[in-house]
Amino acid sequence: MTALDDHSVRPTVTTGPIAGSEKVHHEIHDPATGCVLRIPRRRVGLANGTHIDLYDTSGPYTDSTAAIDPRAGLPRTREAWAARREPVGGAATQLAWAKAGLITPEMRFVADREGMDPEAVRAEVALGRAVIPANRRHPESEPMAIGKRFLVKVNANIGNSAVSSSIEEEVEKMVWATRWGADTVMDLSTGQRIHETREWILRNSPVPVGTVPLYQALEKVKGDPARLSWEVYRDTVVEQAEQGVDYMTVHAGVLLRYVPLTARRVTGIVSRGGSIMAAWCLAHHRENFLYTHFEELCEILRGYDVTFSLGDGLRPGSIADANDEAQFAELRTLGELTHLARAHDVQVMVEGPGHVPLHKIAENVRLEEELCGEAPFYTLGPLATDIAPGYDHITSAIGAAQIAWHGTAMLCYVTPKEHLGLPDRDDVKTGVITYKLAAHAADLAKGHPRAQEWDDALSQARFEFRWRDQFHLALDPETAQAYHDETLPAEPAKTAHFCSMCGPKFCSMRISQDVRAFAERRGLSTTAAIEHGMREKSAEFADGGNRVYLPLADD
Amino acid sequence: MTALDDHSVRPTVTTGPIAGSEKVHHEIHDPATGCVLRIPRRRVGLANGTHIDLYDTSGPYTDSTAAIDPRAGLPRTREAWAARREPVGGAATQLAWAKAGLITPEMRFVADREGMDPEAVRAEVALGRAVIPANRRHPESEPMAIGKRFLVKVNANIGNSAVSSSIEEEVEKMVWATRWGADTVMDLSTGQRIHETREWILRNSPVPVGTVPLYQALEKVKGDPARLSWEVYRDTVVEQAEQGVDYMTVHAGVLLRYVPLTARRVTGIVSRGGSIMAAWCLAHHRENFLYTHFEELCEILRGYDVTFSLGDGLRPGSIADANDEAQFAELRTLGELTHLARAHDVQVMVEGPGHVPLHKIAENVRLEEELCGEAPFYTLGPLATDIAPGYDHITSAIGAAQIAWHGTAMLCYVTPKEHLGLPDRDDVKTGVITYKLAAHAADLAKGHPRAQEWDDALSQARFEFRWRDQFHLALDPETAQAYHDETLPAEPAKTAHFCSMCGPKFCSMRISQDVRAFAERRGLSTTAAIEHGMREKSAEFADGGNRVYLPLADD
Repeated sequence: MTALDDHSVRPTVTTGPIAGSEKVHHEIHDPATGCVLRIPRRRVGLANGTHIDLYDTSGPYTDSTAAIDPRAGLPRTREAWAARREPVGGAATQLAWAKAGLITPEMRFVADREGMDPEAVRAEVALGRAVIPANRRHPESEPMAIGKRFLVKVNANIGNSAVSSSIEEEVEKMVWATRWGADTVMDLSTGQRIHETREWILRNSPVPVGTVPLYQALEKVKGDPARLSWEVYRDTVVEQAEQGVDYMTVHAGVLLRYVPLTARRVTGIVSRGGSIMAAWCLAHHRENFLYTHFEELCEILRGYDVTFSLGDGLRPGSIADANDEAQFAELRTLGELTHLARAHDVQVMVEGPGHVPLHKIAENVRLEEELCGEAPFYTLGPLATDIAPGYDHITSAIGAAQIAWHGTAMLCYVTPKEHLGLPDRDDVKTGVITYKLAAHAADLAKGHPRAQEWDDALSQARFEFRWRDQFHLALDPETAQAYHDETLPAEPAKTAHFCSMCGPKFCSMRISQDVRAFAERRGLSTTAAIEHGMREKSAEFADGGNRVYLPLADD
Repeated sequence: MTALDDHSVRPTVTTGPIAGSEKVHHEIHDPATGCVLRIPRRRVGLANGTHIDLYDTSGPYTDSTAAIDPRAGLPRTREAWAARREPVGGAATQLAWAKAGLITPEMRFVADREGMDPEAVRAEVALGRAVIPANRRHPESEPMAIGKRFLVKVNANIGNSAVSSSIEEEVEKMVWATRWGADTVMDLSTGQRIHETREWILRNSPVPVGTVPLYQALEKVKGDPARLSWEVYRDTVVEQAEQGVDYMTVHAGVLLRYVPLTARRVTGIVSRGGSIMAAWCLAHHRENFLYTHFEELCEILRGYDVTFSLGDGLRPGSIADANDEAQFAELRTLGELTHLARAHDVQVMVEGPGHVPLHKIAENVRLEEELCGEAPFYTLGPLATDIAPGYDHITSAIGAAQIAWHGTAMLCYVTPKEHLGLPDRDDVKTGVITYKLAAHAADLAKGHPRAQEWDDALSQARFEFRWRDQFHLALDPETAQAYHDETLPAEPAKTAHFCSMCGPKFCSMRISQDVRAFAERRGLSTTAAIEHGMREKSAEFADGGNRVYLPLADD
């Protein structure tokens, strides 16, 4: 019996399109396998007859034509692709194929999704500058890439704890997080039924799933770090790889000699995995077994194409500890391990901080790129200040936008409950939306070719008083409309040519439209011509009774 | 009868200390006037017997010993100072005194508040690099400075609209906004009883109050921009200056020839004041009367020491329009006007955008400093992306932290309702807290000498599991504690040596404390010594039963 046959578990998940959007698929032919690839998009239809297609992470759950049954799991689409391709040099990993010059269906899928050339995707993967986390045992996932030439990605952490949560809740959290834009989820369960929870998540997840195998390994030894061993850990990794975990955080850079470097920190070691390995190292006064067995680990991960996420166990947990010796010593070791993993044809990304003031953020990216051969950087925030518990999704979004602009490829979200409690459903959504906007701010700053289309479409709708289009184009249409309803709930307000902030008399966009309408009526196409035409504007205004602002009743 | 004699108005305001804090005053003697200055601080007492004093904007409302009566207004403390000083060269402004080498009580107050030397404050004001908005007719205010060498300040907009709100609500919004850290408030009322509303706010405001006189002037001509005139505007400015308004936004840079530059923008003119003046210029085909009468305006403002806030009527309202010709043309004019105002001994700050992607932010500060002689820059956000209505406090906090780090002196807050509706009480608080954390992130990045003390105190409390200290040190203690209560409501959890995120078994801070305790017991004071000592750690761990994580019951 598999976990999904357990009839006491009855997940119900959120389905249906996001308000104002419909799911569409772009179908392309993959010449290497002969398969047809169906790339999902969130299409927002606009009142002016046009539409805009947005990157879509939500899987079949937002497809009104899809049949959803969590007990059956999602379609195992990638199985057909895998059946038609061969390992290269013994390795069946995206990195091995990319190095061999082969474009996989996953690369082609990603290229279409990001509006890039498939060959460019292959080249980035071959260089190790991008990863496509796609365990062959997780064929339900829709391929995505993490790398600095791609759209900045967002991860949402889910998972139960000793304190609370059920399998049903975790499956819904995954669906919920991807609905709002999570590009990957990490299952960080540390409570009951870890294996079963993960199985339910994997079989139903359209996005790559990451884990920290150390957590489950620690549960297996009753929570005593000193009783951990390479053998327990290895078996856990194999168990999780078999299930289909796409990437794993491995704290192999927490070396025995680095632990004393944390002794005088304000907040010591704040990574759970880091503290567990530090405890093990101290208990045995031996080197971290993840470091000493790293090449064996590479061989296991290669067998499934699991991607390494090299954990920053010594990341700073406060502004005071940012960019210190412990942090950068570990980063140097992660660089060494990155090159080792790549030599084994295993994909790698590298995790980063944490808590860093704005002026110390760029240095983190520069060093990571230098030491880790530009492996995708995957950072937790960072928080730009420590003084606002309850608002750490915001303190960290400030740092996240900054670090992503400088080159971080994926951001791990932070919810409002960070440091204080367990995120609920609303917190998960707030965290994801906050991080999506931070990631998008970075995409704009990096000049991603298609990023600004979205901003322009929304601003155009705002300027033209297409209120519904403005809501539908929002990252969170429901909240945008709810806020508008609070002040101006009536239906006519949704087509009103003013907003509730200024009221009809003070609407700045009205005069702007007037200026433009004037120019267009005259067929003026250059600023000089408009300037010329403006000289006549004065008279026309007087003729019209000087009424720039029409009374509310006219709307 | 004054407005405060109207017994139909019955404001009730929030009073009492912020959780875990008490109001204290530092008393210093001002040699120039012989007055005693009482500088307010928010003192947070900590469980370890120490305390930390924080900058306090909240006025007497958080002083448990103060008698609060909105009908009587706040004590007119600065009247006694004003009585004992003379104009210089006909001007009684902070700028005139500073240029003459005189340190005013306001400068001394500010110096103590910011931990600076009074002479340094005077020098910044004399150079025009800082302003102290302090109308002599608003003696209730506690002096504060806006300038890039000072802590970054936050303004909260309040004010009624045609759609809603009462005098009582606006007074409470002012008290509420300053409670959470607003350094100034702007009364942007455009609805009923504008004069009376402002009177209630001024008489009860411990912070400088700003306005946009154009809004009231427009109301006086029934909302028709074409009927505006210099005379109506001038009379409004005098009326407001007499009441005590400390700074005024003046859209004198919206020149007739710049209006056509906005015709091809995605969002045209988005400033209300800018659009009103553009409408006037077009209607009459004449130059902006605020520009042509600017020197008369200087003479009026000088009479009260009202500070100019030169409005950016042509600021970008979308990512697409950022840093365009219209915006920078206006900025050049604002530079010209800045120098003119200073020649009249009138203090000046300059307003800035709006909507700007991250990579175009630094250019705004650089140009403003170059063109406006480093006059304090006062920006609205800017929003770093347009795609998240409902979350624009966050999209703009990202831009705000960035621009403040580069040198912006004051940030105008944005609430979650921006673009959608009118902010309520919760939105005001969310906006203020969000901007305070952004301002503080910038203070850290700028290396403000005392900024990091606060982060360190909070992080230290976090590391030592002093939960109540962590809440009390938070920008918003109530929310921090409420979030903690949601997951672990019981009283013992407030002293527990773990957090609800990780639970007792996975608490990273436990092992860190262990590492440190070990080092301290051995009297190890250098990393090398600790490293040496660590070699013995292994044996000790084994002796202790390898129990890094004590069971929950032991807490």
